[in-house]
Amino acid sequence: MCPSKVSAGDERGWIVPIGGAEEKENSARILERFVRLCGGRDADIVVIPTASRLADTGARYETVFGRLGAGRAESLEFDSRDDGEREQWLRRIEQASGIFFTGGNQLRISTILGGTEAAKLIRQQNARGIAVGGTSAGASILSEHMIAFGEEGSSPHAGSVRLAPGLGLTNRFIIDQHFRQRDRLGRLVAALAYNPFAIGIGLDEDTAAFIGPDNTVEVEGSGAVTVVDAGALEFSSMAQVSEDEPVCLLGLTVHILTAGATFNLHTRQASAGSLDRKRTG
Amino acid sequence: MCPSKVSAGDERGWIVPIGGAEEKENSARILERFVRLCGGRDADIVVIPTASRLADTGARYETVFGRLGAGRAESLEFDSRDDGEREQWLRRIEQASGIFFTGGNQLRISTILGGTEAAKLIRQQNARGIAVGGTSAGASILSEHMIAFGEEGSSPHAGSVRLAPGLGLTNRFIIDQHFRQRDRLGRLVAALAYNPFAIGIGLDEDTAAFIGPDNTVEVEGSGAVTVVDAGALEFSSMAQVSEDEPVCLLGLTVHILTAGATFNLHTRQASAGSLDRKRTG
Repeated sequence: MCPSKVSAGDERGWIVPIGGAEEKENSARILERFVRLCGGRDADIVVIPTASRLADTGARYETVFGRLGAGRAESLEFDSRDDGEREQWLRRIEQASGIFFTGGNQLRISTILGGTEAAKLIRQQNARGIAVGGTSAGASILSEHMIAFGEEGSSPHAGSVRLAPGLGLTNRFIIDQHFRQRDRLGRLVAALAYNPFAIGIGLDEDTAAFIGPDNTVEVEGSGAVTVVDAGALEFSSMAQVSEDEPVCLLGLTVHILTAGATFNLHTRQASAGSLDRKRTG
Repeated sequence: MCPSKVSAGDERGWIVPIGGAEEKENSARILERFVRLCGGRDADIVVIPTASRLADTGARYETVFGRLGAGRAESLEFDSRDDGEREQWLRRIEQASGIFFTGGNQLRISTILGGTEAAKLIRQQNARGIAVGGTSAGASILSEHMIAFGEEGSSPHAGSVRLAPGLGLTNRFIIDQHFRQRDRLGRLVAALAYNPFAIGIGLDEDTAAFIGPDNTVEVEGSGAVTVVDAGALEFSSMAQVSEDEPVCLLGLTVHILTAGATFNLHTRQASAGSLDRKRTG
C-alpha cells in the first residue's frame, strides 16, 4: 500500500486531515476551503461515512457541503468488503473531484475498505490531483501508518499505541486527532519512537492540516497543529523497555502551528507564514 | 527573590521536585534517595505541610521519612504569615539537613511563606548545601517562576497558565507536576512562551528530578520527566494573540527522560546516561 505514483505532468491532490468536531455552521472555514479545493460550484464530492455507525452521517455532510457551495455531494455507504468492488460506486469515485471520510472508528474504514478496488482507486485519484480529506477517524486513515488505538496521556509508554496500515495516501506522517482535547501527545510520540522516519501530526478539534502537492502543511481552523519531528532524535529506549514502562526519547523537535503557519514535510522546516508580522508588514 | 548566592567554598544543595503521588511503601526510591541526600541516619528533615489542608499530612511524612531511615523528621505547620517569623522554627530550619514541602495548593505556600524570614532562610540553607525537595504543589513552589494554576490540554493557549513568584531556589526552570496524569504540556509550554529563557520541567507522578549542585537533572521514579527547551525558539505568536487563542511556537526541543537519563540545565544537553547500553556495555 505505497502511495500511488504521481504521473509525469500530474500533481498529487491535496490531503486534508481534520482533527474532528470541525465547525459546520458559522465560520466553517475548514470545510469551505475543502469545497473550494474540490472546485466550488463544480465540485463533485463523494462522502464516505463508513467509519460512523450513525445512519445520518453521510446525509449530514451532503447537506453541509451543499450549503457551502459544492455543486454535488453524495455519500457512498460502503458497509461491507463487497461494496468496495461495486462497479457503480467505483465509477462515482472516478468522477469525483473530492473525497471525504467522516469520523467514527478508523478500524471500520481499514477493515472494510483495506485492499479493495475502492481503496486503490482513491489512492490513484489523489495521485492524479483529486483532494482527499477526512475528519477524526477519517483523518487517521489517510496515511500509510495509522494509529488504530492507544492510551491517553502526555508521556509515551512503550505499549501506549497500536499502529495498523491505513489508506496509504502518503507515508510521510502519522496523524492523531482530537489532540488537545484527548491528550494524545504520548501516543503520537510513542508511534514515532518505533521508527522515527515519519513526522507526527497532532490535530486539535476544529483544526485541519491542508497538505499541498508540494508537501507543505498549511493550518486552518481555530486550534493548533502539533508537529513532532523525531528526525534528529539522539536516543530512544523503545527497544529496551517493557510495554507499561515509559520511553526515554532525547532530541524531539516540536512545532505548534496555528492558522497561517506552515510546515514543509520534505525539508522539515516550520514557518510562521502570515503570522510573522515583520515579514508581512 | 533571586536565588541566594552560593558562597565561595560552598556548593548549592540538591533541589528535588517530585511530580506527586510518589511511592511511600514499596520501592519508595524517590523518598529513599532524598533521605540519603539529607544524610540517612544523620538526617534531620523539616517537613513543611503548609500546602495541605489535611491535618495529618505532616505527621504522615514524619513517619515515612523515619521508616526510610532518617535520623529525625519533624513537621513545622506554618499556617499564618506570623509563623514565618517564629524564632524557634527558624532555628529548626537552620539546623535541618533537608527541607521537604508536601503537596496541596502551591498558593498556600506562596501566600503564607512568601517574603517571610522562613522563606529567606530556606533559600540560604539551599545555597549552603542543604537539600530542598517537594512533591506536587511542593515541587511547583521551588522555582522562581511558579505555575499558580492553569488549564489542561496538550496545546498552549495564551491564557492557559498563570504564573506567580515562587520560593526562588533557582530561576533556571519552571516546574509542572502530575504531568502525564493531568495533561499539562500546553500550560507548561504557554509558561515558556511568555519568556523562553527558562526550561520547562514536566514531572509525571511518582517521578522526580534530582537537580544536583552542577545543575544536572537526574531522573528517579517510575514515570518520565519531560524537558521542554525553548532556547532555540524560532517564532512565538504569544504577543499577538488573545487569551483564548492558541499560540504558535516554532522550534521547541523536547526530551522525555526516564530513570537513568540526565539533562544539564546549564549546557541544555540531554544524555541517555545509564540507559545507553553502548556506553555502559
